[in-house]
Amino acid sequence: MPDFRPVLMVIGLFVAALGVAMLLPVLADLGRNTQAVTADRQAFLASAALCLAFGGGLAASCWGRIETITTRQGFLLTTGSWLALVCAAALPLTLGGARLSVTDAFFEAMSGLTTTGATVVIGLDTMPRGFLLWRSMLQWFGGVGVIIMAIAILPFLSVGGMQLFRLESSDKSDKIVPSADDLALQIFALYAVMTFACFVCYWALGMGGFDALNHAMTTVATGGYSTKDSSFAYFVEAGITSGPVDLVAVGFMIAGSLPFGLYLLALRGRGGALIKDGQVRFFALAVIVFTAIVAFRIVAALGFEPWEGFRLAVFNVVSIMTGTGYASANYSAWGPFALGIFFCVMFVGGCAGSTSCGLKIFRLQVALSALFVYTQKLSHPHRVTVARYNGRPLDEAVFRSVLSFFFLYFAVFATVSVGLSLFQLDAVTALSAAGSAIANVGPGLGDIVGPAGNYATLPEGAKWLLCAAMLLGRLELFTVLVLFVPSFWNR
Amino acid sequence: MPDFRPVLMVIGLFVAALGVAMLLPVLADLGRNTQAVTADRQAFLASAALCLAFGGGLAASCWGRIETITTRQGFLLTTGSWLALVCAAALPLTLGGARLSVTDAFFEAMSGLTTTGATVVIGLDTMPRGFLLWRSMLQWFGGVGVIIMAIAILPFLSVGGMQLFRLESSDKSDKIVPSADDLALQIFALYAVMTFACFVCYWALGMGGFDALNHAMTTVATGGYSTKDSSFAYFVEAGITSGPVDLVAVGFMIAGSLPFGLYLLALRGRGGALIKDGQVRFFALAVIVFTAIVAFRIVAALGFEPWEGFRLAVFNVVSIMTGTGYASANYSAWGPFALGIFFCVMFVGGCAGSTSCGLKIFRLQVALSALFVYTQKLSHPHRVTVARYNGRPLDEAVFRSVLSFFFLYFAVFATVSVGLSLFQLDAVTALSAAGSAIANVGPGLGDIVGPAGNYATLPEGAKWLLCAAMLLGRLELFTVLVLFVPSFWNR
Repeated sequence: MPDFRPVLMVIGLFVAALGVAMLLPVLADLGRNTQAVTADRQAFLASAALCLAFGGGLAASCWGRIETITTRQGFLLTTGSWLALVCAAALPLTLGGARLSVTDAFFEAMSGLTTTGATVVIGLDTMPRGFLLWRSMLQWFGGVGVIIMAIAILPFLSVGGMQLFRLESSDKSDKIVPSADDLALQIFALYAVMTFACFVCYWALGMGGFDALNHAMTTVATGGYSTKDSSFAYFVEAGITSGPVDLVAVGFMIAGSLPFGLYLLALRGRGGALIKDGQVRFFALAVIVFTAIVAFRIVAALGFEPWEGFRLAVFNVVSIMTGTGYASANYSAWGPFALGIFFCVMFVGGCAGSTSCGLKIFRLQVALSALFVYTQKLSHPHRVTVARYNGRPLDEAVFRSVLSFFFLYFAVFATVSVGLSLFQLDAVTALSAAGSAIANVGPGLGDIVGPAGNYATLPEGAKWLLCAAMLLGRLELFTVLVLFVPSFWNR
Repeated sequence: MPDFRPVLMVIGLFVAALGVAMLLPVLADLGRNTQAVTADRQAFLASAALCLAFGGGLAASCWGRIETITTRQGFLLTTGSWLALVCAAALPLTLGGARLSVTDAFFEAMSGLTTTGATVVIGLDTMPRGFLLWRSMLQWFGGVGVIIMAIAILPFLSVGGMQLFRLESSDKSDKIVPSADDLALQIFALYAVMTFACFVCYWALGMGGFDALNHAMTTVATGGYSTKDSSFAYFVEAGITSGPVDLVAVGFMIAGSLPFGLYLLALRGRGGALIKDGQVRFFALAVIVFTAIVAFRIVAALGFEPWEGFRLAVFNVVSIMTGTGYASANYSAWGPFALGIFFCVMFVGGCAGSTSCGLKIFRLQVALSALFVYTQKLSHPHRVTVARYNGRPLDEAVFRSVLSFFFLYFAVFATVSVGLSLFQLDAVTALSAAGSAIANVGPGLGDIVGPAGNYATLPEGAKWLLCAAMLLGRLELFTVLVLFVPSFWNR
């Protein structure tokens, strides 16, 4: 049985910090006093007090100096803090003016913190600013949390091949580096600067200041929550913004999907690392190929103008592939082939060490390497083929971790899909909602969960199942599932 | 470049043998002289002549004593002979009275020899006997061919973890055992006896002699071609047969899905091997669990009587899981949850070394073992966990082969599904047709390819794509794909 005290202390501190953050939505509605705003203000203040009391109390009661964190504590900390933060984040959503049910509030908070972006709220355009800001903040925190987790924690837990990304200096250790604090601070600063740049671009192109701030937060986080029911399509319409705001969004969604560790190297003058990185190149290739296919298809088959076809294709492909989930058009109407492509793109995801989710580019690369090595071995059993990833040889452990990840991914996908079909959802809705939740995308396909739909009408049980899928997908499956293996709890 | 001569010689002999077999359908219609029968008779005679001439010529021109076959020759022989036999088998279908197009004849022959059972023929009930017998014979030959391939060839080619099934005596060799002839003969005899037993049972229960023969051949082969448009449902209806003919079919479909190598051991007095085998037990468990789920669902939600619900559930679950593809009811109407279960069951398949296809039970077992070992390692990085399969330790090579197989399987499935959507097929049709073809099941879901539909109306391109999927699935993917790796052709 691992020592829970350091884990509980850190979780307590996280919850307390989220409590402090709850004061920001209160400020967003200063000067307004409608009934909804007042209810929200009270909810945020009450929730902040609860979080500070509970989180602070937990941290204080487990206080102590953390020398090092074992792998098992790492798993507990990761899953535990994500769950605790979702519960805390749901508080103001269910207590406030929108009066979300407990299920809906938990779903909305889970979708926020996992940067999924699936929403059960209808009527965003008229919601109090505090409520909207809170949703965006959840995605923003979730995004940076994921990056730090992927750089500082998962490589040491060897989850699904993430050991590939252990920092060179600590290759031999399976303890988490003590310098994680410094790294986290640098990532956080970079992330904030990137968000600010996105905000400035949106604002300069004519988006209102509040909308620009919210969308900047959910773009860089590849989250996808919007302040409008019609999502990004609202701003792409003529007259509202004065330039290609959608292409700016494409740029920042991509920026959020590249490995943040390489940005830090680039800032230290090693910009080549970003351009030469195998994962970045493969990601760029995937974006180009899928955009070209979709653009060609909608121009040729649906008669879009080439430039409009390209803009729609690149925005929606990047939005789905990075797991952002903004929609600039109802691509459900683009025919079976485009739908098929979107369904596949959904699983791809972005690079490891970014805010995006999905299978991740490096896993596709490792799996393709495994196939290559294996087919070589089939025809030449006695020849030795060594596969490399970014110049370093891939070992058996990485192959097996990554291939096991794929197997588990599709097993979970099938289980969640069949589970959803228990609630009488049709096949397209069940399959795409399951895929979208596990890959933290947001919208699925079809009328209910598609880009023009809303998750509000789903049955309660389906929402809870999707919450589990979002958490599993976000924490790379194994981080959660390992807690259900009995031997995890052995001494 | 491997030496083609032994490969071509064997392929020539196979084609010539198929030519001889074409004389049987001629005998089936003796004494009848309708226009269709006469056209078919001429087609079968002409095709037989062509096959004997071409196959005999090929064998004669490459004649020589085969000492041993290398792995690369093994791959060429397997894929080459399957393709050549499909082409030869399609001849009488396109030349005969039914006048199938080249595409349809190739599809029907591929579906036959791969024991898939998807059909493009409408109006089976009134077709000449020779035509119907030929379709059944193709499945019967395909079934025994697959067993021999899985026992005598694939283990030595190490395809997708099949090295697990190398016979103990030849563990060290990667050449194909010279005693393959003996083994093939024993398997063939056993298969024939099993088919005869099935025929006697069907006949005793009141199926007509000709129908009993055809269905016996396609039951034991887990193929699924029927002599009736309404498939097995025709015989389940009251009054036509005098007993539970569907339960007899369940028994023989299961018999066809168990490892034939273990039957041979059982005949030598080691019957325990069959009962204690991990794969057989897991298969039985899967049948029981899925039957229970479906039976419970249709009794509870659709109001079937318990006994009728059980019969429908067990027949259709076994038919889909073993890849037979008979239908005794239109399960498309059983609601989303039952459809979801059928969709998953389709991928499962039967045991290695049987006539059934799909992912195969042993691969699921190995992948689950891999997950178990991996999660153990995550929480206890320094502990060594050894996984076993039927008492023998599983090594890294088997894990990697099996997990690579899963990855490739889902990649091919996704590619074929998206490819089918190019032909404007809806998502359920595209996904289920792709899954059904790769797993060699036969029917999919939905109105077009579901149990009450027919593949005839699909576009030509979709049929060719499905042919490729059937061949890939039947030959365990790698056997075909390895031929497309450039280094295969190196010296």
